[in-house]
Amino acid sequence: MRRRPARFSLLLVFFAAIPATALASSDGHGFGYDVWLILAAMILAAKIGGEVAVRLNQPAVLGELCVGIVLGNLYLLGLDTFDGAAQLVPIEFLAELGVILLLFEVGLESTLSEMRAVAPTSGLVAIVGVIAPMALGYGVSLWLLPDEPFSLHLFIGATLCATSVGITARVLKDLDAMARPETRVILGAAVIDDVLGLIVLAVVASIAQFGEMPGPLDLTRIIGLAAGFLLGALLLGAYFMPSVFRVASKLRTQDVLAAVAIGLCLLLAGVSGAAGLAPIVGAFAAGLILDEVHVRPFGRKSAHDLTEIIGPIVAVMAPIFFVRTGMMVKLGGIGTESLLLAVALTIVAIVGKLVAGLGVRGKTADKLTVGIGMVPRGEVGLIFANVGVGIKLGGKPLIGAGVYAAIVLMVMASTVVTPPWLAQRIRQVMRKQPDVA
Amino acid sequence: MRRRPARFSLLLVFFAAIPATALASSDGHGFGYDVWLILAAMILAAKIGGEVAVRLNQPAVLGELCVGIVLGNLYLLGLDTFDGAAQLVPIEFLAELGVILLLFEVGLESTLSEMRAVAPTSGLVAIVGVIAPMALGYGVSLWLLPDEPFSLHLFIGATLCATSVGITARVLKDLDAMARPETRVILGAAVIDDVLGLIVLAVVASIAQFGEMPGPLDLTRIIGLAAGFLLGALLLGAYFMPSVFRVASKLRTQDVLAAVAIGLCLLLAGVSGAAGLAPIVGAFAAGLILDEVHVRPFGRKSAHDLTEIIGPIVAVMAPIFFVRTGMMVKLGGIGTESLLLAVALTIVAIVGKLVAGLGVRGKTADKLTVGIGMVPRGEVGLIFANVGVGIKLGGKPLIGAGVYAAIVLMVMASTVVTPPWLAQRIRQVMRKQPDVA
Repeated sequence: MRRRPARFSLLLVFFAAIPATALASSDGHGFGYDVWLILAAMILAAKIGGEVAVRLNQPAVLGELCVGIVLGNLYLLGLDTFDGAAQLVPIEFLAELGVILLLFEVGLESTLSEMRAVAPTSGLVAIVGVIAPMALGYGVSLWLLPDEPFSLHLFIGATLCATSVGITARVLKDLDAMARPETRVILGAAVIDDVLGLIVLAVVASIAQFGEMPGPLDLTRIIGLAAGFLLGALLLGAYFMPSVFRVASKLRTQDVLAAVAIGLCLLLAGVSGAAGLAPIVGAFAAGLILDEVHVRPFGRKSAHDLTEIIGPIVAVMAPIFFVRTGMMVKLGGIGTESLLLAVALTIVAIVGKLVAGLGVRGKTADKLTVGIGMVPRGEVGLIFANVGVGIKLGGKPLIGAGVYAAIVLMVMASTVVTPPWLAQRIRQVMRKQPDVA
Repeated sequence: MRRRPARFSLLLVFFAAIPATALASSDGHGFGYDVWLILAAMILAAKIGGEVAVRLNQPAVLGELCVGIVLGNLYLLGLDTFDGAAQLVPIEFLAELGVILLLFEVGLESTLSEMRAVAPTSGLVAIVGVIAPMALGYGVSLWLLPDEPFSLHLFIGATLCATSVGITARVLKDLDAMARPETRVILGAAVIDDVLGLIVLAVVASIAQFGEMPGPLDLTRIIGLAAGFLLGALLLGAYFMPSVFRVASKLRTQDVLAAVAIGLCLLLAGVSGAAGLAPIVGAFAAGLILDEVHVRPFGRKSAHDLTEIIGPIVAVMAPIFFVRTGMMVKLGGIGTESLLLAVALTIVAIVGKLVAGLGVRGKTADKLTVGIGMVPRGEVGLIFANVGVGIKLGGKPLIGAGVYAAIVLMVMASTVVTPPWLAQRIRQVMRKQPDVA
């Protein structure tokens, strides 16, 4: 039995035979048949990687990331099958859909009142977790790039502030720690982080581009939109959802519960995107407000049953996001300067968020767990970096190729370092206080 | 309760407020946040349309198509939210994924031996179903477009030959008729149709472009690839699948069954695409060869349980395909000539496939049901039409705008006419022989 998995790897050999040029084929569609092969390879490889990780006593998501790194760097061995695959629109889209559904499922496993209870703690953690990495990142940039302008230091600091909660959520889910107070604090802080990050980006981009703070009107608009969305989501939960689900429960079509739930999840994801927030914030909010109350009309279908229906969908889709994240780590062609900057940024990225964990008051939750849980940066950091590339100072992009590579490396390092570390810590905490979970 | 659905339509009003210009937004991705809104609208609208259809005693898929037609033509009322939405790559991709998963599920509900039993009947139905519509289409084209070249008549005939089995499969599934002999005959004939259609396209395109039949080498390659794929899929089923699933059943990661099953489905969909066949043929084959034997190692998980796991995924994804199909029907701006050609083509498209039903021998299956089930044309017909647009004769495309519009209308009409007709017929047959199902 131990030697059987070799047959599995036969499948991978098969995929290696697809030439990268096939990627260009597209029989009148915006994509070719090879997208199905790449997707199949990513899904099957994710399960192999996840399995290896689980057997090494690690969360499955770590294996998915590593398998992604392997696939994304096969080009170094002359196999170009997966070169550029991560950038294909269908793959990018499905990955994003996967993490949206994951955060929706995570939201389903928490309730609004649980989140409200930890709100003050989450708020403090989020604020410290934005200020500390920004200040440290500014310092590192000033130290390593002394000749660069003030606005670049500011921008690099800003890329360090946003938490990417997907990885942390998966680790805590893999380890059955969804009901822990630490989990709630991290999730709440990540949502607030996202709103704060939005404001930081607006301020920093305005300073870099126009040399001044954004006007009070602009700031009000940004904050108003984000706050308006969060408030709107809560109101929706209280007044709108019960009727929608009462109606839906009367429908005679099959599987209406899954469709309505996912429809509402995508609706809030889109609205949250329209408000300038990450779509996963909306998906999480959708899960949060879908309480058992709303699903009760479906007879024996409770919110738990909804998780059971959504579960297999998430199990297939979410790994696509993590494998793709791994695939974007390019191991070849990084200069020494970028590497040095990357190492320094990674250190302050980690230290800055560990400091944020000190925002936990008293013994309500483990400070270190919360800190580690906030470490992963992700898409949001990369979006900031892309905005920086778009800002031109004297014809040159504010963030050049070297700094951009360093930021990408920081994002990747913070992402890969989290799963084993968080797993080790939360297991320790759960052994000490098994009753809390 | 009857008046409650009004609240549901509030959601639609909300979507109408998204300006089409928002479609252009894309924050550094290949798609913008609005894609989530459009998707949410399509999923929720699908369930509303499906519900109305079910209450009118029609298959849900008819409602999904109609709701799609409404969304796609809102621009006639000045609402441009969904204008161009069907052409967005993520929507097109997800729709294709939806119909792939649907055919996979349909395949799961049949077994290889059942299909083998009806193979001679399916073969005859498929052959008649290719020759009759081609001959009739050629005649119609010759009659209505007497001044056009021979190769156009041939091409128009060819667009009539391929069956699009998605609609039929959904109708039969909606009505719990998956175990009927008619269902097996139709599914088998549709697979063979696809291979025959491939050969027809190669021959017709070669004649139109070079004025002669393709060489024997080219024909052998095309047929060899398609036959090789089908044979390979069967061998895979017999020798490879059992080991893959035996290994997979030993994995400790969660939800591994759904992931491995969908991974293999996409693998065969891609391979079938690489062989020049429609990806849904591969997906169907994947479902067919996933027998209970292979899933048994998963303990209480049988093939039936696999259908239960895949069910909710298909219930959410497949309607995206049917709503999008409806959205592509544009009611505005079609000339009288195109309309006349469209009506004539639709009539011969229907008659040609009803004749195919006569290929059923004896009383093993209801001839009329099989004929109606073969009526829907679909993506394949449109792909043929697109190839025809790409062939230039004297600088002009072989298939001009007017003929193209007529073909699209024929595809749509054959698609929309099938669900109510097939539902009525199969119900009648099932009432007469309730023991067969």
